[in-house]
Amino acid sequence: MRKQKITISVIGGSSISSKVEGLAESVGIMIGELECILVCGGLGGAMEAAAKGAKKAGGTTIGILPGKEKDDANPYIDIALPTSIGYARNTIVACSADIVVALPGSYGTNSEICYALVYGRPVIDLGNWDIEGMIPAKNVEEAKERIKKIIKKLHA
Amino acid sequence: MRKQKITISVIGGSSISSKVEGLAESVGIMIGELECILVCGGLGGAMEAAAKGAKKAGGTTIGILPGKEKDDANPYIDIALPTSIGYARNTIVACSADIVVALPGSYGTNSEICYALVYGRPVIDLGNWDIEGMIPAKNVEEAKERIKKIIKKLHA
Amino acid sequence: MRKQKITISVIGGSSISSKVEGLAESVGIMIGELECILVCGGLGGAMEAAAKGAKKAGGTTIGILPGKEKDDANPYIDIALPTSIGYARNTIVACSADIVVALPGSYGTNSEICYALVYGRPVIDLGNWDIEGMIPAKNVEEAKERIKKIIKKLHA
Amino acid sequence: MRKQKITISVIGGSSISSKVEGLAESVGIMIGELECILVCGGLGGAMEAAAKGAKKAGGTTIGILPGKEKDDANPYIDIALPTSIGYARNTIVACSADIVVALPGSYGTNSEICYALVYGRPVIDLGNWDIEGMIPAKNVEEAKERIKKIIKKLHA
Repeated sequence: MRKQKITISVIGGSSISSKVEGLAESVGIMIGELECILVCGGLGGAMEAAAKGAKKAGGTTIGILPGKEKDDANPYIDIALPTSIGYARNTIVACSADIVVALPGSYGTNSEICYALVYGRPVIDLGNWDIEGMIPAKNVEEAKERIKKIIKKLHA
Repeated sequence: MRKQKITISVIGGSSISSKVEGLAESVGIMIGELECILVCGGLGGAMEAAAKGAKKAGGTTIGILPGKEKDDANPYIDIALPTSIGYARNTIVACSADIVVALPGSYGTNSEICYALVYGRPVIDLGNWDIEGMIPAKNVEEAKERIKKIIKKLHA
Repeated sequence: MRKQKITISVIGGSSISSKVEGLAESVGIMIGELECILVCGGLGGAMEAAAKGAKKAGGTTIGILPGKEKDDANPYIDIALPTSIGYARNTIVACSADIVVALPGSYGTNSEICYALVYGRPVIDLGNWDIEGMIPAKNVEEAKERIKKIIKKLHA
Repeated sequence: MRKQKITISVIGGSSISSKVEGLAESVGIMIGELECILVCGGLGGAMEAAAKGAKKAGGTTIGILPGKEKDDANPYIDIALPTSIGYARNTIVACSADIVVALPGSYGTNSEICYALVYGRPVIDLGNWDIEGMIPAKNVEEAKERIKKIIKKLHA
């Protein structure tokens, strides 16, 4: 049984379209509503939009930053954790999650998906990644249902 | 100006005397009272006693774990962040802090002190480490005063 | 101009078919013939077959290991570098390369491809990965030609 | 029995006196004479002087770099391995060694000593570190004798 707070890592591009921005914000709101902690890479794009959404829903956000300074975090991060290990911090964004939600992105997001699957984390696919082992979801509502089921199991 | 929550990393041995246990718990209580987030390595000894203290004072605790599983965390960790990078997670415990409090410990604690100083973090010495660059404190009260001054500067 | 020895990282599954084993060994032989250093993750499968090939061609092999012990290395590794950072060592296998050769594999290999592309390393695709940014090669001969051109540029 | 080549990590300050420079070069020569691989952090100061010595004695040198580019390496590095993980690469310089030789240095060197002791590596003290668990040596000759004995055991 999971005794700690459930953390959900949201991964996605740092440079995204306004459509994906809206999607990321909705994912953040959903995580806030579920009273889970949102974890992300702490920078811009999907990370910022998701953190913004979580704050709108009264949630808590953690940013695992590549650099040395907390000031690198986007404005919606409550707890900034600078690592100074650069992109290798992606491995920690993936490993530290109970559940990962993957939005559209590039190589960095793809590396996080792979690491999450290596570490055995459930990865919800909201970015048409279509990588074997991911859990597909058509939209945020479907993602929410899948996440609720996983949380139920974690609490069993 | 620090916009994120202030995080204080407590570092110290995983195998400690009951006297150091009491000291670690007092440090945790102090951090809870200051309404800062306590960050630690998430395991036993000083990490557990400090987290226990923080919870007594109504604080929030984060454990940056060496392994892959959240279950490795001691019972007083609210947010467990498994890293799967082993002892190298010490570098992140050090880097992610606004302020570090060093209790008695062994090589692991010493490595965290060194990393904190490399990354330019203020390190309060409550373990007679006496390493150049650390901020000495005779007891928890003195440590609290020093921390309050540092926080004031971070918020300036 | 590259003053150091050219290193080529060979990445691929730790559990592979005999066909891929043959391919990996041919890639290793090719790297040995080019008098480049072969770098890999140091364990079994594609890593072992490639290192075996490099040794057949008189080359030098380096294994960047996930664990703590040199004994974890496959028998064809000359220089074993244990890292104790687990799968996160994949980021170093990718970053440390002048050129990456990707064989068929799973999530781990995919993570290394992504990291190599994030770090701007040329990645030769010998595994039908078909990820944007990779350099396709039909076979080892074509891979060799592409690698020779990249080396020429690195030495320019 | 150690089947791979013996690697010796030389650690020490990046900004050193000419006296320590001479000491580091002598250590490098000694490692080259013993036909071991010299591993270091790849940058200046003690790392550069030691690598220079190893090359004088016909040895091979590896630099485990904090940054992304091979060009960061000092001119005496044969095999540059950029890691992109910043100072956290110190943990790998320590872990990857069969034997560590510690010269005078600062926090970075101290962190490497601690990590080497955490990982159970023998650490020769040529820098008056006087940390419990290190193997003291008065000079390079004495260090050489101690290293020869450790190598004998590794080959047993």
